Amino acid sequence: MAAEQQKPRQENAVFVGTKPVMNYVLAVITQFNEGAPEVCIKARGKAISRAVDTAEVVRQRFLPDTVVKNISIGTETVQAEDGSKLNVSTIEITLAKAK
Amino acid sequence: MAAEQQKPRQENAVFVGTKPVMNYVLAVITQFNEGAPEVCIKARGKAISRAVDTAEVVRQRFLPDTVVKNISIGTETVQAEDGSKLNVSTIEITLAKAK
Repeated sequence: MAAEQQKPRQENAVFVGTKPVMNYVLAVITQFNEGAPEVCIKARGKAISRAVDTAEVVRQRFLPDTVVKNISIGTETVQAEDGSKLNVSTIEITLAKAK
Repeated sequence: MAAEQQKPRQENAVFVGTKPVMNYVLAVITQFNEGAPEVCIKARGKAISRAVDTAEVVRQRFLPDTVVKNISIGTETVQAEDGSKLNVSTIEITLAKAK
């Protein structure tokens, strides 16, 4: 709604949300094709399972020469609309070219 | 990844499904309290984000002396009801007591 979250925009990152998995798969493949040595797939909350789907589809179907270099999970605190605070889980999956 | 799937039923594993997160949190805590040195939290498909929630709640709220020892993702092929085959993503999060 308001300004997009002002995180320092990371290079070679794909933020997975509620769109179809193939949108994010395409975004990851595009970054590799543009020469990125690795791509970080990030998601929060319910989108986490879609982030794992994205990584798996890229790796198994389109770019078999990529490997899962790292996976980390965490918790972020977000402000709910009523002002209360909510904890939401996060994931970051880093895919890298095997060579 | 294929080797992982061949493991005979693993001890100290919690399979996360569609129940509330706290059910699985309690299952993990119980296993640690019974002396397990590590507990593997497993899930497939949409339950993956709940598995991450489970690990984060255990670690941040109940057992701060546990660490995420390993996270792995994979793909399993399951038979759909009409006989067709579906790929489903999987995750395994291993929590261990920090020494």
